[in-house]
Amino acid sequence: MNAKKSSLPIVVLAGGVGAARFLRGLALVNEPRATTVIVNTGDDTTLHGLNISPDIDTVVYTLAHAIDAQRGWGLSDESWRAMDSLKKYVEVRPENSDAAPDWFNLGDKDLATHFYRTARRIEGAGASQIAAEIARAWDLEQQILPMTDDAVSTLVELAEDCIAGKAGDVISFQEYFVKYKHGVAVRSVAFDGVDSAKPNGLAQLNNAGAIVIAPSNPIVSIGPIRALPLVDETLRKNRERVVAISPIVGGRAIKGPADRMLNELGHESSALGVAKIYSKVASTLIIDSADAGLKDEIQALGMRCVVTDTMMIDTSVSAALAKTTIDAIVGRPS
Amino acid sequence: MNAKKSSLPIVVLAGGVGAARFLRGLALVNEPRATTVIVNTGDDTTLHGLNISPDIDTVVYTLAHAIDAQRGWGLSDESWRAMDSLKKYVEVRPENSDAAPDWFNLGDKDLATHFYRTARRIEGAGASQIAAEIARAWDLEQQILPMTDDAVSTLVELAEDCIAGKAGDVISFQEYFVKYKHGVAVRSVAFDGVDSAKPNGLAQLNNAGAIVIAPSNPIVSIGPIRALPLVDETLRKNRERVVAISPIVGGRAIKGPADRMLNELGHESSALGVAKIYSKVASTLIIDSADAGLKDEIQALGMRCVVTDTMMIDTSVSAALAKTTIDAIVGRPS
Repeated sequence: MNAKKSSLPIVVLAGGVGAARFLRGLALVNEPRATTVIVNTGDDTTLHGLNISPDIDTVVYTLAHAIDAQRGWGLSDESWRAMDSLKKYVEVRPENSDAAPDWFNLGDKDLATHFYRTARRIEGAGASQIAAEIARAWDLEQQILPMTDDAVSTLVELAEDCIAGKAGDVISFQEYFVKYKHGVAVRSVAFDGVDSAKPNGLAQLNNAGAIVIAPSNPIVSIGPIRALPLVDETLRKNRERVVAISPIVGGRAIKGPADRMLNELGHESSALGVAKIYSKVASTLIIDSADAGLKDEIQALGMRCVVTDTMMIDTSVSAALAKTTIDAIVGRPS
Repeated sequence: MNAKKSSLPIVVLAGGVGAARFLRGLALVNEPRATTVIVNTGDDTTLHGLNISPDIDTVVYTLAHAIDAQRGWGLSDESWRAMDSLKKYVEVRPENSDAAPDWFNLGDKDLATHFYRTARRIEGAGASQIAAEIARAWDLEQQILPMTDDAVSTLVELAEDCIAGKAGDVISFQEYFVKYKHGVAVRSVAFDGVDSAKPNGLAQLNNAGAIVIAPSNPIVSIGPIRALPLVDETLRKNRERVVAISPIVGGRAIKGPADRMLNELGHESSALGVAKIYSKVASTLIIDSADAGLKDEIQALGMRCVVTDTMMIDTSVSAALAKTTIDAIVGRPS
């Protein structure tokens, strides 16, 4: 497959695990240095004073073949000595304190990334500069771009009284996702700060040979990127070159809460539901063979629909999916 | 020795290693809950966004029997995975960046303490509140008090052009102590912020049965505490109950740069030099048997002088030294 590696300028809109797996395959079929990844940073959080960018790190670690494949996040051969040692402090913190949160695991090796990011932030470096440095540290050739250098926070409104709070309470994405293991119902999602944030990567979007919306959560991974000023407008303008990959297969999210979240927010948890979310900005949708029966309905929305194997159980499937995805844009008769 | 444990209210002015070893002995001869430790925080620093209080941690870890005795700092059975992983980032940081400093080792287990301190600071807790919580986490009964809740930074002025900068340049204490391994000559020492800082422990000093100046560096460990408003005045007022232990034995510091620093700053690197620094605030000086010949000269300064074994090679020596030190104040004929 290497022999036929293309060097098309490709931009990928990315969340975490699903996007990262796609990108690993893409690197096998398209020159990595021709790829720009615009990564969701609505999940970013600060813990123990450390700046954490979960999706950036998942993309970087995966592309560097350093990810823990089983967990899907963090580094392989990881240890948890710092987190283990935190337990004694949880026991002494005052009632009203959230110090030493022990629900967000940070591996010992992984900490170095947060240390570096935090130190560079304190020095005044921007998120995209820091991401470039981190990518270089891991010998990546892709351009890894946080969606914005400004602070945007994904917030989740609770649909009902639950362990996380009362109906209507707003919690951070990481509380929703990690602390409550995305097990609470959601009424709405908001991206705090998005209106005044400056998007990264608009030029790359306008100059891309293909724009790929990775198989990430449409609401909380791709949603924050699309909510940035000018991004949806830029995607619409380039719609013919935009291809999305459905993260929903057989009505279920491959990973994470996308299926429930789609339902809770009034969408359909299906490849058709995904098509409806993306039809204005993407000309093409890649769906899994399991969903072949939805092809006609999706095409009726005015999208091309390509059916293939999207379950990226290994890099050869990822590479084949990446090839099919690119071909759907550049390989079709014009 | 336990049978005879006193419960005298004792206040100890403390730096790091030497003070911690003394305190471990003191806990064997005086009820720990009767002891207040006022700890130097001029060495405090921020690394990777984490608030670090080296002397507090050395005192706490030592009293909790968790210190790495060989190193004298940090925890026993420690690992260095986070620091090791930081190396790749040092290689990619820009020329003008000090991010990811790899010269200050933070052990994986030790990190939890910095995480907790930092998180509590962000929540608005004061340094003394946090130190009390950390002490409780380690099951200590002593009151561990940072010398102030305000920010005071020990700064070191270089005496000559050297690896750390030019003569007259000012560097932080940790740069001097750790980065340059206290191997550069010092022209002066300053405690930035000390004039407006509010001292902790004045009431305890006034109510103490004995006040001990631990065998710590008189300039950069005890110096910052004494430089706080009202502290020296309070010590002078209570001089009869103040006893200092010389950290200089046979003209040499037991640990660290105290000997060179005393010389460079115009003092004598000897127990007599220490006596001169403390004679206005302490009625009594404990010196090592090796320095017995200096006793008359020290007494000529108007101090009582007690000669004993001050080399705390194990806790039994520490305990004996603590006993001798207390007895020098409360055991003498009034």
